[in-house]
Amino acid sequence: MTVFMILCRVFRRERFALTESSQPSRKLESTMAIVPWKQVGEDVTLAGKFGKKLIVKQFLNPKSGKIQDYVQFAQRDWSVCLAITSDGQVLVVSEFKQGRNAVDDELPAGTAEFGESPEEVMRRELRDETGYVPELMVYLGFGWISTRSSPTRFHCFLATGCKKVGPAKLDENEDIETRLVSLEQWLEMVMNGSISEPSAVTTTIRALSHLGLKIAR
Amino acid sequence: MTVFMILCRVFRRERFALTESSQPSRKLESTMAIVPWKQVGEDVTLAGKFGKKLIVKQFLNPKSGKIQDYVQFAQRDWSVCLAITSDGQVLVVSEFKQGRNAVDDELPAGTAEFGESPEEVMRRELRDETGYVPELMVYLGFGWISTRSSPTRFHCFLATGCKKVGPAKLDENEDIETRLVSLEQWLEMVMNGSISEPSAVTTTIRALSHLGLKIAR
Repeated sequence: MTVFMILCRVFRRERFALTESSQPSRKLESTMAIVPWKQVGEDVTLAGKFGKKLIVKQFLNPKSGKIQDYVQFAQRDWSVCLAITSDGQVLVVSEFKQGRNAVDDELPAGTAEFGESPEEVMRRELRDETGYVPELMVYLGFGWISTRSSPTRFHCFLATGCKKVGPAKLDENEDIETRLVSLEQWLEMVMNGSISEPSAVTTTIRALSHLGLKIAR
Repeated sequence: MTVFMILCRVFRRERFALTESSQPSRKLESTMAIVPWKQVGEDVTLAGKFGKKLIVKQFLNPKSGKIQDYVQFAQRDWSVCLAITSDGQVLVVSEFKQGRNAVDDELPAGTAEFGESPEEVMRRELRDETGYVPELMVYLGFGWISTRSSPTRFHCFLATGCKKVGPAKLDENEDIETRLVSLEQWLEMVMNGSISEPSAVTTTIRALSHLGLKIAR
């Protein structure tokens, strides 16, 4: 993580704290504050293939005092970016997605190879999938594919000033088409439910304030 | 925030005009349109526990002509809602999430029991987790936890005019706290990366137009 990325995160935290303290939320019931549960023992792998695993974790529920089993799905973290060209167009990637079982419009994204940082993954995937390189990348933090059922995270980036430097470099297993849509059109696709991949949706909404955009009446 | 970042933000604000962008999207390369791949044979289950499974699906890649294996994680679909009270506050649920391994702020949500429709799931979970019932529910479509690696969907709802009808009904395994935050504050939490659960983020952005909100400069 670069100093620039750290500064961005600190800045966001401070802004959030100001908003929060100006309007305190109120609890509905006089419950105890929720405390983090503790994992008991090690992960047990039920099955694994191609780096994807089904695991069982045991946690001590502090409310009941009982140990409960949770089954989770683990794979390598990935990176995803809202990439905008120097003339303000969004790079939208279409490919067949085997989970959804349909051709899907989404953002450039890819999985970490050994030893790569999230930003290195993103720069490599953006270049290979689309042929573009960014002028500036901003880290937007990470999310989980399922906060209940997976320890796997996706790292969100905003890439601006993207310029084409050559053709896409796809391997024979990749069947991808990139097209340019206006930022307005992409935001409409996210808002109206046309975009199914939650990492693309999350990345887009986190990029808004960095693009000088806000949600308004 | 550095001077560099301020300059970047000012610069970007001028570059991303939302108004000048109603042009049609354009393809970058003269590729064939992406066609849906076909699954070959049946799912093979590698392991399963508590309704969660690791499965292998084989697909024929029409570009390479080869059959490729995809490992996926399957569980029951779930429902999630942005629930707003009759005085305009969002019901935010905090609980320990075993995937993220932390206490998480998110929206009321729950998994389907046998024979329930997505809306029935949502009404039951909203009532049980928070003690509230809605005046109106709007279905916002579904998303996938991972369009690549899971056939599991989450169904998104907007629930408005919510009124408290009694205490929450939690079973002994549930350790949940509900609080009310202003809609403005919730949107800020989603935009600034404080919300990690992608189904909550997706539901929020799909609800915007139904709430008379838009993304603007």
